[in-house]
Amino acid sequence: MKLDKILKPKSVAVVGASAKEGTVGNELLKRLIELNFNGKIYPINLKESEILGLKAYPTVNDINASVDLAIIAVPAKVVLSVVDQCNKANIKDIVVISSGFKEIGGEGKLLEEQLANKVKEYNMNLVGPNSLGVFNTADNIRLDACFAPIVPKKGTIGFASQSGALVSGTINILPSLNIGFGQMVSLGNQADITALDVMEQWENDKKISQILLYIESITNPQEFRKIAYRVSHKKPIIAIKSGRSEKGAKATASHTGSLAGNDISADSLLASSGVIRTKGLNEMFDLAKVFEYCPIPNGNRLGIVTNAGGPGILATDAASENGLVIPTLSNKLKEKISKVVLPQASLNNPVDVIASASCESYVKTCELMLASGEIDMLHVIYLYITGKNDIELYKNLEILKQKYPNIPIICTYMTTEDFEKEKEEKTNSTIPTFKFVDDAISGFKALLDRKQFLEESSAKTPVFKVNKAKVKKIIEDANKENLKKLSTLQSLEIFESYGLPIPAYASANNLEEAKAIASKIGYPVVLKISSKTVSHKTDVGGVVVGIKNEQDLEMQWNALIERLKKANLLDGLDGIVVMQQVKGKRELVAGAVYQGDYGYQIMFGMGGIYIEVLKEVAFRPCPLSLRDVNHLIYSTKASKIIGDVRGDKAANVEYVKETLLRLSQLVCDFNEILEVDANPIMLDEDGNLFTVDARVNLK
Amino acid sequence: MKLDKILKPKSVAVVGASAKEGTVGNELLKRLIELNFNGKIYPINLKESEILGLKAYPTVNDINASVDLAIIAVPAKVVLSVVDQCNKANIKDIVVISSGFKEIGGEGKLLEEQLANKVKEYNMNLVGPNSLGVFNTADNIRLDACFAPIVPKKGTIGFASQSGALVSGTINILPSLNIGFGQMVSLGNQADITALDVMEQWENDKKISQILLYIESITNPQEFRKIAYRVSHKKPIIAIKSGRSEKGAKATASHTGSLAGNDISADSLLASSGVIRTKGLNEMFDLAKVFEYCPIPNGNRLGIVTNAGGPGILATDAASENGLVIPTLSNKLKEKISKVVLPQASLNNPVDVIASASCESYVKTCELMLASGEIDMLHVIYLYITGKNDIELYKNLEILKQKYPNIPIICTYMTTEDFEKEKEEKTNSTIPTFKFVDDAISGFKALLDRKQFLEESSAKTPVFKVNKAKVKKIIEDANKENLKKLSTLQSLEIFESYGLPIPAYASANNLEEAKAIASKIGYPVVLKISSKTVSHKTDVGGVVVGIKNEQDLEMQWNALIERLKKANLLDGLDGIVVMQQVKGKRELVAGAVYQGDYGYQIMFGMGGIYIEVLKEVAFRPCPLSLRDVNHLIYSTKASKIIGDVRGDKAANVEYVKETLLRLSQLVCDFNEILEVDANPIMLDEDGNLFTVDARVNLK
Repeated sequence: MKLDKILKPKSVAVVGASAKEGTVGNELLKRLIELNFNGKIYPINLKESEILGLKAYPTVNDINASVDLAIIAVPAKVVLSVVDQCNKANIKDIVVISSGFKEIGGEGKLLEEQLANKVKEYNMNLVGPNSLGVFNTADNIRLDACFAPIVPKKGTIGFASQSGALVSGTINILPSLNIGFGQMVSLGNQADITALDVMEQWENDKKISQILLYIESITNPQEFRKIAYRVSHKKPIIAIKSGRSEKGAKATASHTGSLAGNDISADSLLASSGVIRTKGLNEMFDLAKVFEYCPIPNGNRLGIVTNAGGPGILATDAASENGLVIPTLSNKLKEKISKVVLPQASLNNPVDVIASASCESYVKTCELMLASGEIDMLHVIYLYITGKNDIELYKNLEILKQKYPNIPIICTYMTTEDFEKEKEEKTNSTIPTFKFVDDAISGFKALLDRKQFLEESSAKTPVFKVNKAKVKKIIEDANKENLKKLSTLQSLEIFESYGLPIPAYASANNLEEAKAIASKIGYPVVLKISSKTVSHKTDVGGVVVGIKNEQDLEMQWNALIERLKKANLLDGLDGIVVMQQVKGKRELVAGAVYQGDYGYQIMFGMGGIYIEVLKEVAFRPCPLSLRDVNHLIYSTKASKIIGDVRGDKAANVEYVKETLLRLSQLVCDFNEILEVDANPIMLDEDGNLFTVDARVNLK
Repeated sequence: MKLDKILKPKSVAVVGASAKEGTVGNELLKRLIELNFNGKIYPINLKESEILGLKAYPTVNDINASVDLAIIAVPAKVVLSVVDQCNKANIKDIVVISSGFKEIGGEGKLLEEQLANKVKEYNMNLVGPNSLGVFNTADNIRLDACFAPIVPKKGTIGFASQSGALVSGTINILPSLNIGFGQMVSLGNQADITALDVMEQWENDKKISQILLYIESITNPQEFRKIAYRVSHKKPIIAIKSGRSEKGAKATASHTGSLAGNDISADSLLASSGVIRTKGLNEMFDLAKVFEYCPIPNGNRLGIVTNAGGPGILATDAASENGLVIPTLSNKLKEKISKVVLPQASLNNPVDVIASASCESYVKTCELMLASGEIDMLHVIYLYITGKNDIELYKNLEILKQKYPNIPIICTYMTTEDFEKEKEEKTNSTIPTFKFVDDAISGFKALLDRKQFLEESSAKTPVFKVNKAKVKKIIEDANKENLKKLSTLQSLEIFESYGLPIPAYASANNLEEAKAIASKIGYPVVLKISSKTVSHKTDVGGVVVGIKNEQDLEMQWNALIERLKKANLLDGLDGIVVMQQVKGKRELVAGAVYQGDYGYQIMFGMGGIYIEVLKEVAFRPCPLSLRDVNHLIYSTKASKIIGDVRGDKAANVEYVKETLLRLSQLVCDFNEILEVDANPIMLDEDGNLFTVDARVNLK
């Protein structure tokens, strides 16, 4: 693993260590000493012989011992020579704190390229440049090689951040967040080590329970997807990908020098990777707190025990809105509870033990709920109203937690400020507490989402039998003609070759052929021109719908030819399509679009004239997995249209899925394709699927 | 004002005062003493002669002085006699802490009715029963007559809560929320004083800057709307109305004994009243913190000054998503800023002064932004990374705030825990600070929403000239026949009388009449049966569309009559409507529905076959004001369909508004109406509005 020595070194050299207060080199050394690094520290400074009580060396080459890791905090222009020295000293793992590289553009960018090349040449592992450093709080390591003003609170979270400042800010507030960090990598400019390496590093590290990422760009998105999907089955990955807005993306570009990806692609990629994406840090840390201490529940039934009605109602509201079930308790259970609570208590779920409940009564009620088999999660709400027993209750809940380890418990505590401190000192702090019920309910929701993720259909991508050769031929022919926008006939043939559903059709060269095709297909039919020069058929009157009979066909055919003649469009024509007219009210849309590094994105959703107004469409990256295709269908209201709607029959969902998977297979097979449009896809009254218009464009 | 003496008494009797630790009567007295009540306190206890150092009296009638307020905390069954005694002692203002009333049902309910009657008879003002009490932290009052375990943090917020426990819980966490309370009323069962009285009480109280409500039901919704709308123009009202979900509503019912209203009605009522509805307490208190210290901005341009890139991007993302504008700064301003920041600073908005910025540089940058005229709001982000100057910066920002009082400033501080305490001690704490940028941005958003509210078109309801007499006649006739579901003709006539847009139509009794009407209207036409016995016309084949010419009309007419004969439906018929067929793709829906206490609700939104799938509809209460109708139109995607869509012309929005206002006028004029449906309302290609189907049902 690339980060083995960086995160678990036995000896560290600090190049640029300084005796001067307030300098980076001084702060770095102080943190290393402060967390009591379990290994040798070598300050490197050309002038000093001792810094902060440690023997200092002029260069790394002056140390007469093997050094695992060099932390480099010297001016940018000196970094390259320091790297040379490190190589000479056989130090293959380095963290470059120095800034003045890619993020300042121009010569900085050049310098970073040189640095990256050196690292490659020397077969080194590099974090940074422009990094705040790394740390590992494990008892046997105690490495704080991070230029933040205080040492971090210990825990089991792995945190990697593209913003160094954010690491510092987060360490400041960690105590109030009730979470601790195990290992941290400030990624900096990612000249070598990226978020991908960090995920792989932590994948099997037993001391890291979950991975938190702050990223501004996704390096190598398709590789990211593979690694993140695999790792997130072992531990949760929660990520903030900033630059969501156009303005935000602009700020990103100016900030780290990295180009921001398209947010739709990023969002679809993260979702497909099983990464939990949060918008803000607040939500990220709240979820981390829950994952840290709670098991995944066995079901979605939430029990609530409260000593105040109001918050109980608020919790019920929030729970219902988040898809949790608040089951009615059995009479048997109610009877049991009634024996341990005051007569005024409410035995419904939420169970209201009322303000004057003793701690004992509270705890007994919770235990009856936990033991009942009637709930899968327990939310305990405590308001200090009279007779303060916040800590006593908490301690008892920790005992219950050990007794019922498979049921997640989350608390909402509205008590005085001293509670948090007391909790820290007098308990093991193993049950997440929040001040407000909404945050607690969001926690349960996150656990259920993760449960679903772990149980979901696999990320396998089925492969269908298709006529690849035919499509290859069409694309080759088009390339020979330098044709970017394929004609209707070419597009339909591609769709047909990949088994995408299209109405019965054939191409006619004259009226007689048209008549023969129509009578074979059956009326009503549609006429569409297929042209290599006209891509917007309707604009030139090139589509005629609702042709009822042969008489009608003759009239419309002649009128169409007349229009084409007048507009000088007969030349580009490669045929006129006679197509079965689909009867149906329901319109869907599907498509594929190439998005650079992110590869192809498949779109699916509600079609029709309001497609832009409604924006009921979703995206997922290719190759589409069974899991992705499920999300594509169920993340918009299109899923409801696929079902029974006002007398029209439901479509076969499996067939809708297959259609999207085949579309994905098409673009994966032919990276010459720029975009594919299947718009609209009509559903007839019986629920049959027809792509009424097909369009394929090449890069 | 009903609460004058309750919230500003000169003397207080505590009936049920007790020397026994842990009792309600003991706690109440302790709080009164603890906050150092600026008036006389009279403990009332049958046995004791002195409690907590104060002379005690057996009954209120034994006090030889006038008493303004009695706090009653005796067993429920004794309350009535205590009220009698109060009346005899001329104490007209009481707070009943005792529980055991409506909330326990049965005899409790009866007892509460008796209490309410007595209060009415004696012309008293009552808070409760089942109340936690009241308090007023003003320096010249210092009344803490509230059975919560600690005294509240002082401030200028008025808080009224239907849950007593929530008051207690909130007081516990007030210090950490950075807000303070001025006055509080725990409403209890609202046997006399309700949230309405409290709002009126605080409407003109200069010491109360904003009103926070926690309510589980809305007493007298229509009166609530009037008062809240008026008051919210003077100060913000932020409310939680719990029982949003069905389950939550159930918990409400069992909790306070009050019936939960329909949440759609409640939501529409609160929106129409100008009340800011939040889901959770967290959001409520965050907004309160912002309103407490920030002026309403003059525009939506946000400036951001940060010392770290990452949070700057996150703020930009959040701002863009909330409709705030992050303006590009002028070159002139950038040049000025460049002179006060480090060379590595980023001069774009967000301005990144970078981690090593001195406090002076930071403050100068902020001042240049404030003085520039280029921004309306300022977000300052500070992360402690190196050289801690959090408090120093904050102090300087407070000075800037005084210099630029019209520009709201909100901070995000990611610094060590001691900051909050230091801020409390060393500064005036007049700038809201948050730990996370999202919360800060939500604050700016709330200020902008309030700005919009204060500037919005008034709540006036225009009155249109209508033919009220005709509708009166139709409804009277229907009542005589005991007809609840009016026929199509009757419904159309009602719509016509109130100027609602309907296609050209007339009723035909025979084919010849139908032909005459159709030729006058012009083909294509529609035939619809109008029946007093059949309400679902389409189910019996009673609607025929797309009749192209007279020949077609004759055929369809005859077939229709044949169908009706066969189904024995000729009897209920009051005519067959011949109606202009509207050509258009865009479908809207409008309606009115009676919702009990909440009165009539007007619905408006997207129509068509997916109406239930899309749920793009909004509700507002009657009488609809100009402001309401604006919200009705712009709160769903229907507003986009009204505009230019794919070549179809935009509708006249003023006319859409007028249609909804006329619908509101109709149901306000006739409370015999149960519901009105205008579904669908079609928009033709030119943007003309036609109610294609009208339906009116009576109560």
